[in-house]
Amino acid sequence: MHKSNLNAGTHNLPIAPIGLIHTPFKQATGTPIQGVAGKCAEGIVELQAEYVEGLRDLAGFERVWLIYFLDRASDAQIVVQPYMDVAVRGIFATRSPARPNYIGISVVRLLSIEKNRLLVADVDMLDGTPLLDIKPYVPAFDSFAPSREGWYANKSAAEVVADDRFEAGNAET
Amino acid sequence: MHKSNLNAGTHNLPIAPIGLIHTPFKQATGTPIQGVAGKCAEGIVELQAEYVEGLRDLAGFERVWLIYFLDRASDAQIVVQPYMDVAVRGIFATRSPARPNYIGISVVRLLSIEKNRLLVADVDMLDGTPLLDIKPYVPAFDSFAPSREGWYANKSAAEVVADDRFEAGNAET
Repeated sequence: MHKSNLNAGTHNLPIAPIGLIHTPFKQATGTPIQGVAGKCAEGIVELQAEYVEGLRDLAGFERVWLIYFLDRASDAQIVVQPYMDVAVRGIFATRSPARPNYIGISVVRLLSIEKNRLLVADVDMLDGTPLLDIKPYVPAFDSFAPSREGWYANKSAAEVVADDRFEAGNAET
Repeated sequence: MHKSNLNAGTHNLPIAPIGLIHTPFKQATGTPIQGVAGKCAEGIVELQAEYVEGLRDLAGFERVWLIYFLDRASDAQIVVQPYMDVAVRGIFATRSPARPNYIGISVVRLLSIEKNRLLVADVDMLDGTPLLDIKPYVPAFDSFAPSREGWYANKSAAEVVADDRFEAGNAET
């Protein structure tokens, strides 16, 4: 029972990859952030074959969430200087990858499904990123137009690409 | 059962709770789904004190993502009958909690922050749910109006509350 692992010695939860995300991006430098700067970037989500039945009915959705493990992020930081800003922000006020639990979420466009492989567009993750979950994008649950967007207000991600500041092996921010 | 293979200890990723989410919901039955049916439900996100600096600048955001571990979900299923439907769907085409990796994502309204405690509204998770991450809700990254919403089209979650079908200890779907 997964629940019992909550108090296990390591405290790690029973969360493991269920597939891989293949993208054109081999390193952080030059990779678009959050897909919005890479509208044409296509990727392949390769789900482990044992889960293929779980894709039933997914093809009807134009967009899906990919939940993934940021396996090449640098060590977690409590405060960071995000790609889109020059100031230092709390990690939870940013989408930077150097987070305590290294979990990333991105909306991608679902182009087609063939068996256990999904062709998607607007990818922004590194090639070979471990997949944790796929969820349908449902506007009633996910789409809001908040009146306050914090420090992201009036900034545009369209021209922003990543550099190596959050890549493993690069301790400097 | 696929879960036992997938969640073998050695393959678990280094993901652990960083806090707890306190809500009015003690059991799945009657809990709103995705917040949209529980607009008035408030909760407290209690972040572990060591991460409090990571909340810097978060107060400027009207909404935030909570990423959490569905610790009381029933065993993972590849196909499920969602709360909002009478048909059986692939798990990845639904937001049902009985997922291979038990990761939930919900948008909540951020009402206030005091030290390591966030007062939030529109909660839809069970009381005591382990917190994995907090991210700002950024419309440019998160808000889309897809033309195809799959089986969710023309369904409303506003009147839907959960029952016990995905709760641990209830093997029946």
